[in-house]
Amino acid sequence: MQTSPIEIFFVEDNFDEAELLFYALRKLNITTRIHHAQDGAEALEYFFGANPSDSPQPVHLPRLILLDLKLPKVNGQEVLRQLKSNSMTSAIPVVILTASNEERDILECYRLGVNSYIVKPVDFEQFKQAVRDIGLYWLTLNQIPAMIN
Amino acid sequence: MQTSPIEIFFVEDNFDEAELLFYALRKLNITTRIHHAQDGAEALEYFFGANPSDSPQPVHLPRLILLDLKLPKVNGQEVLRQLKSNSMTSAIPVVILTASNEERDILECYRLGVNSYIVKPVDFEQFKQAVRDIGLYWLTLNQIPAMIN
Repeated sequence: MQTSPIEIFFVEDNFDEAELLFYALRKLNITTRIHHAQDGAEALEYFFGANPSDSPQPVHLPRLILLDLKLPKVNGQEVLRQLKSNSMTSAIPVVILTASNEERDILECYRLGVNSYIVKPVDFEQFKQAVRDIGLYWLTLNQIPAMIN
Repeated sequence: MQTSPIEIFFVEDNFDEAELLFYALRKLNITTRIHHAQDGAEALEYFFGANPSDSPQPVHLPRLILLDLKLPKVNGQEVLRQLKSNSMTSAIPVVILTASNEERDILECYRLGVNSYIVKPVDFEQFKQAVRDIGLYWLTLNQIPAMIN
């Protein structure tokens, strides 16, 4: 069924949180490729190419994008907006993983077409468990179009 | 945090499958109200009112909608389209739960803004486990706007 490597793309500017997230994703024993972008501009460049001659579009699209909201250069809302308004990337599940539980952020993300919105648990064990549950749900239960696989 | 009853709305025309789904949802011990619609027209009437004087909009919006695709009267794609194009309902997570793993159905649902697409396992135990995983993910981990709670 699944022949291509299973890829996750995550965008997180905080170094410690990125390391924790990477660790929790690796513990899943599912993903074979993990891409990390440190800010919104780097994420957009990965998918769309800031300068197409330098940055070709990736051959494989990820099965899941984990996206922080408060990011340097380009914020998560704008990354989400561009991902969901481009037909090449709109079917990739995007899960917001953020410290913010502000109503305006949640509403705005759903308005932009987010697939799911998760508030990061502050406790490390709960955070690991949440990442595990997110990974298992989106990588093993959820179906995406074959064009992304 | 959560003061209103947690509601799930599901749309399934097959009586046996609806019963299984109801059973699996009750086993979650999370939901306090489960609404069932047997076809797409009944689902749309619940949310939007075919005849507003007879069918007022529900006071509480559900935290999750489980939607079959092949439904009598109005199919699941049309129900999804109307839910996602109305600002009152667009932030409610919609999970397609269907026997179809056809690429055109998957693509169409993502194009219409589905939150997640699950192919029903045929094995009963796997089906129960899938419903459990879906319920736990969307009812305990995922955040929705307070206006829906």
